[in-house]
Amino acid sequence: MKVLKAVRAKVGDRLRVEKLSQVHEGILMPRTELGDQNHLVIKLDSGYNLGVRLTRDAKVRKVAVGKAPRMGLPPIAFKPDPSKPSVSILGTGGTIASRVDYRTGAVYPAFSAEELYSAVPELADLANIKTSAVCSVFSENMSPQLWVKIARAVAREMNGGARGVVIAHGTDTMGYTAAALSFAFRGVFRPVVLVGSQRSSDRPSSDAALNLLSAVAVASKSDIAEVCVVMHGSTEDDFCLVHRGTKVRKCHTSRRDTFQTINDLPMCVVKDGEIIPLSDYNKAKQEGKVVVDAKFEPRVALVKVSPGIQPKTIDSVLRAGYRGIVLEGTGLGHTPEVLFPSIKRAIKRGVPVVMTSQCIWGRVDMKVYSTGRDLLRLGVIPGEDMLPEVAYVKLMWVLGHTRDMREVSELMLTNIAGEILPRTRPDAFLKVFGGI
Amino acid sequence: MKVLKAVRAKVGDRLRVEKLSQVHEGILMPRTELGDQNHLVIKLDSGYNLGVRLTRDAKVRKVAVGKAPRMGLPPIAFKPDPSKPSVSILGTGGTIASRVDYRTGAVYPAFSAEELYSAVPELADLANIKTSAVCSVFSENMSPQLWVKIARAVAREMNGGARGVVIAHGTDTMGYTAAALSFAFRGVFRPVVLVGSQRSSDRPSSDAALNLLSAVAVASKSDIAEVCVVMHGSTEDDFCLVHRGTKVRKCHTSRRDTFQTINDLPMCVVKDGEIIPLSDYNKAKQEGKVVVDAKFEPRVALVKVSPGIQPKTIDSVLRAGYRGIVLEGTGLGHTPEVLFPSIKRAIKRGVPVVMTSQCIWGRVDMKVYSTGRDLLRLGVIPGEDMLPEVAYVKLMWVLGHTRDMREVSELMLTNIAGEILPRTRPDAFLKVFGGI
Repeated sequence: MKVLKAVRAKVGDRLRVEKLSQVHEGILMPRTELGDQNHLVIKLDSGYNLGVRLTRDAKVRKVAVGKAPRMGLPPIAFKPDPSKPSVSILGTGGTIASRVDYRTGAVYPAFSAEELYSAVPELADLANIKTSAVCSVFSENMSPQLWVKIARAVAREMNGGARGVVIAHGTDTMGYTAAALSFAFRGVFRPVVLVGSQRSSDRPSSDAALNLLSAVAVASKSDIAEVCVVMHGSTEDDFCLVHRGTKVRKCHTSRRDTFQTINDLPMCVVKDGEIIPLSDYNKAKQEGKVVVDAKFEPRVALVKVSPGIQPKTIDSVLRAGYRGIVLEGTGLGHTPEVLFPSIKRAIKRGVPVVMTSQCIWGRVDMKVYSTGRDLLRLGVIPGEDMLPEVAYVKLMWVLGHTRDMREVSELMLTNIAGEILPRTRPDAFLKVFGGI
Repeated sequence: MKVLKAVRAKVGDRLRVEKLSQVHEGILMPRTELGDQNHLVIKLDSGYNLGVRLTRDAKVRKVAVGKAPRMGLPPIAFKPDPSKPSVSILGTGGTIASRVDYRTGAVYPAFSAEELYSAVPELADLANIKTSAVCSVFSENMSPQLWVKIARAVAREMNGGARGVVIAHGTDTMGYTAAALSFAFRGVFRPVVLVGSQRSSDRPSSDAALNLLSAVAVASKSDIAEVCVVMHGSTEDDFCLVHRGTKVRKCHTSRRDTFQTINDLPMCVVKDGEIIPLSDYNKAKQEGKVVVDAKFEPRVALVKVSPGIQPKTIDSVLRAGYRGIVLEGTGLGHTPEVLFPSIKRAIKRGVPVVMTSQCIWGRVDMKVYSTGRDLLRLGVIPGEDMLPEVAYVKLMWVLGHTRDMREVSELMLTNIAGEILPRTRPDAFLKVFGGI
């Protein structure tokens, strides 16, 4: 970065870079988290970003002084169109919310409607956008406290007249937040859509624009009245899928189609602005009032069972004051026998223990083998076909409402927000929806 | 079961059951773990099992006294054929080992070669089978101590002249054992095949016979010199897949094709006795000597990271005396910032911390976001494209050999048994191999 200091170049300045007898001119981009110390990235007039490795032979010259980095491109003045529905976009942080201006690559901790329009002008065809920032965290730092804050903001927008609400969220824990919001409302009557992006929007391969457009399409015109996640359905930039908030999981560290509906088909496909239903969902209503019921007991532990796991793992969870335990058992919902006494102690002390499976797909069935039956006798609550992550969020929510062991058990076994299906679709195993 | 007591029927007796003007005759099967109190199961002369619900109108009569349940069908006397390869089958427990006599449905804690031949006579066409029981546990009770016992038994058989070794194992933790055995040998020169079944072999839909036949086919004639898992490749009884021991995972609670290779193609397909390679593997040799190197430090914790996870989760792992921690982080390998001080403390105390991703698919990349870079700076070891379960087993093995932090880090980052691929196959996401 010495080179940049030498020419006093700042993000936004127009630079001329000569290297290996090639000359390029463009706007200096902020050092993205993907960059390293010895590269600079300029945005060419063609719109493409170019990374240049600063070897000794590279010459850098400042051609023009740019705007301050926070400014990005001049925002397009936006005129609300009264014939269009209004959609509220809530920022929480993460790649999509902080960097959505994919033409400049400038890093924004939050965004205004104007900035969004200048980044993705097609949004103006769909809706009048209203934006506000709830928080600004990488999603790995998301917490039950922030779920409550987001839920309140969503209800405020929906009850305030928004046709739909979009939540821009980091992808790491978007599945957990989607589940939390699914339990956090009574009477959702319009779409609540979580959206993120897997690639920074300053990269040419970014999925941010299509995801955001599809999310706003779902929010502004779909008849869904549930919490859902809208993300790429393939690695091509061709369609998005709408996943139920309680059945979705991030399944790949980097692919754009990382989010997958587990044990069911996705709710809808979004392609070329059309929303095509794939399975049943609650239908939106003209009128309604959404009530926030977002009490979460954060002291719930998610414990993955593995061969060699020691009973003290459970014991120390108890000692640490956790109020509930979700086990990721093996197979149909098993643990080694050595854990039985600790599990028994937990339940005796009023700490409910819920069983899910680390298989991810399928359904817990603890009546098949004696190990499962033993665990049922100890009072372990079978998690049906709930994802471990969803059972974890749900137990937080249930314990936020009652600590009566029988009520906890009843609520955990009752389908509240699509998290328990009466039957697991046999054709929904490991299948990406690829019918488009 | 009162009805059975009334007619003094024992497992193996021939019963005549009348119900709703239908009459059936067959051999009384043992109450399988799938049965419930009000059903009895008889094996008809056609070979099919029939479940009868004992309503008030059902009449049960004993027609003939059967053999004791442990006897099953009379074993076929088996004559070793010197022209055939010899395959050793080691029993460890689990559905396939304990119940392989699918014609009688009798429950066997172990099995003899004769019993195997009478259950799956086609085995005799493939190999001379030698059987022995290493242990007899449900696989949820499998442990690092038993991995060592199995490894020694495998080496004894392979060095003793077996063309290949088959290990009958419960499916719940078969992936963990496969990984453990992959690290536990030096110089494997012939196939080591784990096999299990998802359905008790006394059910008509059992996968036990095809799995066992395919496993013995791989052991007796494939040119694989690695530890692998052979299980159904689809829900039809049509082909099996051979999965590398360090890349395989149980992905469904109940389906027969529950085992899936992650981030890669399976090694081979087995169909109609043919073994068709799909990807590269180490090739078998005529001569060799396998050495057991099975030291595992059992005090390794597998900790799944979730929003709301509290620092004391890591602290209590430390206090409990664990010697290593494998984190199942979010996305590319992240944890909430609140865990950083605890992670730092762990590493300072000489407890290595390895990062994997709960996404399952893909590869950890901790250089993309600042959270990952912070964790790298703390000394967290990135787990590349290792499955969390495999990294867990590998860290046990590594810590069984050294506690030097630099050596641990080096070994964790070195591919030892196919657990780290230089590149993740982009086409291997969520795909069942279905090319047959």
